[in-house]
Amino acid sequence: MNRPATTVSPSALAALQDLLGPGGWLEAASDRAPFETDFRGLHRGSTPLVALPDTTERVAALVHLCAQERISIVPQGGNTSYCGGATPRPGGREILVSLKRLRRIRAVDPAGDSLTAEAGCVLADLQSAAAAAGRLLPMSLGSEGSATLGGIISTNAGGTAVLRYGMMRALVLGLEAVLPDGRVLNQLSGLRKDNTGYDLKQLFIGAEGTLGIVTAATLRLFPRPAVTATAFAALPSPAAALALLARLRECLGESVTTFELMPRIALEFVCRHVAGARDPFASPYPWYVLAEVTSSADDPRFGDRFETALADAIERQQVADAVTAKSGTQRDALWRLREAIPEAQGREGASLKHDISVEPSRLPDFVEAGRELIERLAPGARLVAYGHLGDGNLHYNLSEPAGGDGGALASRTAEIRRAVHDLVAAYGGSFSAEHGIGQSKVGELERYEDPAALDVMRAIKRALDPLCIMNPGKVLRDQPAAEPGRRSRRNA
Amino acid sequence: MNRPATTVSPSALAALQDLLGPGGWLEAASDRAPFETDFRGLHRGSTPLVALPDTTERVAALVHLCAQERISIVPQGGNTSYCGGATPRPGGREILVSLKRLRRIRAVDPAGDSLTAEAGCVLADLQSAAAAAGRLLPMSLGSEGSATLGGIISTNAGGTAVLRYGMMRALVLGLEAVLPDGRVLNQLSGLRKDNTGYDLKQLFIGAEGTLGIVTAATLRLFPRPAVTATAFAALPSPAAALALLARLRECLGESVTTFELMPRIALEFVCRHVAGARDPFASPYPWYVLAEVTSSADDPRFGDRFETALADAIERQQVADAVTAKSGTQRDALWRLREAIPEAQGREGASLKHDISVEPSRLPDFVEAGRELIERLAPGARLVAYGHLGDGNLHYNLSEPAGGDGGALASRTAEIRRAVHDLVAAYGGSFSAEHGIGQSKVGELERYEDPAALDVMRAIKRALDPLCIMNPGKVLRDQPAAEPGRRSRRNA
Repeated sequence: MNRPATTVSPSALAALQDLLGPGGWLEAASDRAPFETDFRGLHRGSTPLVALPDTTERVAALVHLCAQERISIVPQGGNTSYCGGATPRPGGREILVSLKRLRRIRAVDPAGDSLTAEAGCVLADLQSAAAAAGRLLPMSLGSEGSATLGGIISTNAGGTAVLRYGMMRALVLGLEAVLPDGRVLNQLSGLRKDNTGYDLKQLFIGAEGTLGIVTAATLRLFPRPAVTATAFAALPSPAAALALLARLRECLGESVTTFELMPRIALEFVCRHVAGARDPFASPYPWYVLAEVTSSADDPRFGDRFETALADAIERQQVADAVTAKSGTQRDALWRLREAIPEAQGREGASLKHDISVEPSRLPDFVEAGRELIERLAPGARLVAYGHLGDGNLHYNLSEPAGGDGGALASRTAEIRRAVHDLVAAYGGSFSAEHGIGQSKVGELERYEDPAALDVMRAIKRALDPLCIMNPGKVLRDQPAAEPGRRSRRNA
Repeated sequence: MNRPATTVSPSALAALQDLLGPGGWLEAASDRAPFETDFRGLHRGSTPLVALPDTTERVAALVHLCAQERISIVPQGGNTSYCGGATPRPGGREILVSLKRLRRIRAVDPAGDSLTAEAGCVLADLQSAAAAAGRLLPMSLGSEGSATLGGIISTNAGGTAVLRYGMMRALVLGLEAVLPDGRVLNQLSGLRKDNTGYDLKQLFIGAEGTLGIVTAATLRLFPRPAVTATAFAALPSPAAALALLARLRECLGESVTTFELMPRIALEFVCRHVAGARDPFASPYPWYVLAEVTSSADDPRFGDRFETALADAIERQQVADAVTAKSGTQRDALWRLREAIPEAQGREGASLKHDISVEPSRLPDFVEAGRELIERLAPGARLVAYGHLGDGNLHYNLSEPAGGDGGALASRTAEIRRAVHDLVAAYGGSFSAEHGIGQSKVGELERYEDPAALDVMRAIKRALDPLCIMNPGKVLRDQPAAEPGRRSRRNA
């Protein structure tokens, strides 16, 4: 067998394999390969061993052994991180722990509106389990067919229903994690109120596996929507879209579940590359919104009120035109226009992606300033800024100029990224709204975060993981590097 | 001047006074007294100095000096803690830092649905500021006329609208705190999405001032309710109340904002002691619910749907009788029946209070088991278990037997509390649903918490406050004491 280059001793590897048992690990290069690269192909590392523990107890024993032997660990779920958070670094010094085999749904409690499941469960399967019990698990995102519970918690995932239901943090009632010393932290609970000491689960949500390995969680469930209404609207500007959102909320309260903004160019890309996709309108418009309102209440006039609100917005010239879905098929077609953007943009050649947020009310000004910046900095590059307007979160992506070879944009990645993130900071925004830090944004965190906050993060990391074996180099650098020229967005 | 007994040196005291400036401190015994006792009169301590800093910078300088001089600090807001969390311990070794003068509202942003204010702002004033801007700050609790923002955050307050809007944690978008070394942690932000490193604000929410002093926060605001409907219902049992809650949610979705359970004896106490309070029904019933639904949507049929749902519940015999408020005056009268319970129970003599929660679906069984326990353990004691049924949170209080001298119950406080909390643990519940740990429940936390979780809490405390000067002895003991006979509710 080809052993990879590694600093993990053969005896330690053998002990780990022994602990994991038959079927509990992968060592051949071809077996390891899919775990060593992120799904976008941007990060490539190496690991001497892919561990596939099948129970929390086995994860705990594994981590305990790794702590004794000072072996670093990279936890991985569905391997859908956008920031290399679940990819080992080069050098073969890190064991990869895949949670894929921890996929039991431990309990579904419709009366208590909760579900307890293990880290390796795929999100779509959990949505189905909730639906089968007559409940809604509202977390929904593009990768839900492969993203796993542990990863979604560890990155505090967002998605398309944050406006109404919040990010993953808002859905986690309780949590089980293996600490960096191999002990199990049992904070599983379906309690709605529990003020007994520090709320430790909060630390593990969004920590990207750097403080321990999430092995299970209890999630909040909600009533299933009894009525859903979906519209695709054409608008003159992001400011008009914000006005439409305010109007919908006035008429329909918290029922507004999805409010996704997309520019003309995104619709063009989708109609060009995605089979069956077509522009719902006869003329082009500069901006579009996919809006969905849902109600779990048995309210027969709900759809009418949505139509009235839209008609009213057209009257006020906030909306230029709008279509509403009259069937499930029509709804799927409208959603497809939004969901196919990443795929369609991929077909247009190389792109530079940013995941930014500003306060929603500042978003129109930011969009205008950003357009000017990109025109000046990267003439010809095609700006495709789309996403979760209601949360102030845009996927702020640049496609290379039409017919370009992609090289010009790629060679200027660092410069453009810096300029975009500096602009975001000037608007008091975030350079990572929902994708996290992983390994690709460690330097950005050092540049933009409050220095006192960075120190507190490092102190917490040291306190929980003094040996620094848990996903080292992710979120925080192994050895904090001094970087001059820091700009805190909070002083902007 | 009478200096109190203290181990803080006169020179350090003078330096602190110098730093605080004229009007920035109190030293006379009569001035210090109101700060040295909690509002229930259960905890009494002493402090050589009440500091009244007026800016975050002054708080920072004060803490910096205290860290240099190894002087401990007790932060205090409105002094409404139920657990002695803001009361200094005896001995005069702790400076009290009142945040009362930090009471600027820094910004109200109705377009961004946020409000930024300083720690000393009184909750009711913040509610008014939000209302003046056409928005709702949904946190609402009995002490809102004196409780301050910093205290509400530091205890992760609950209240009567948690069912719909969540606890304080769910309302904090950003936060500013002074760290135990005197640096200012600036995490103020109105961003809805920001996944840049560990979410540090979560640590300070509910930490009861043991990790730093919260000096300001940015809160989420909501649309103001356009319609409100309020009912007082009579029911045969807690199980029937849960069925009514499920029915209301089915008909009205997330509009259900308040769902408060109270037993017959609570209504009797209120009608006996509170001027103008009267039983809305001609006959007595074993249980009552105050239910309120609100909608920010412009929905003229909302009230009708509420009435229909109630009528339907009466039809199904889940509800024995119900009245709905036809005016603001009637609404206030119904609310008064619930809100006056603590006052009325006080008039009935000494009482023993517990603040417990279980998962809502287990609450009916717990109530029955608890009744049997109390009958066996404290015959004649009058159990008044009322509270936030939708959250599974009961204020589980015992009044002394009618005509008793209170001594019998008081002498058995420890025994009864232990038995109640053990029962709660057996039901997987929490011994402190919303009031926190303070100094009165430190031993309970040690008894019922997962040992690994306790160790992590201590590690975090050491990491952030290595000198242990921040509210020492609250939440966690200064020196962790070994206690045999621990019972984790999570293994129950």
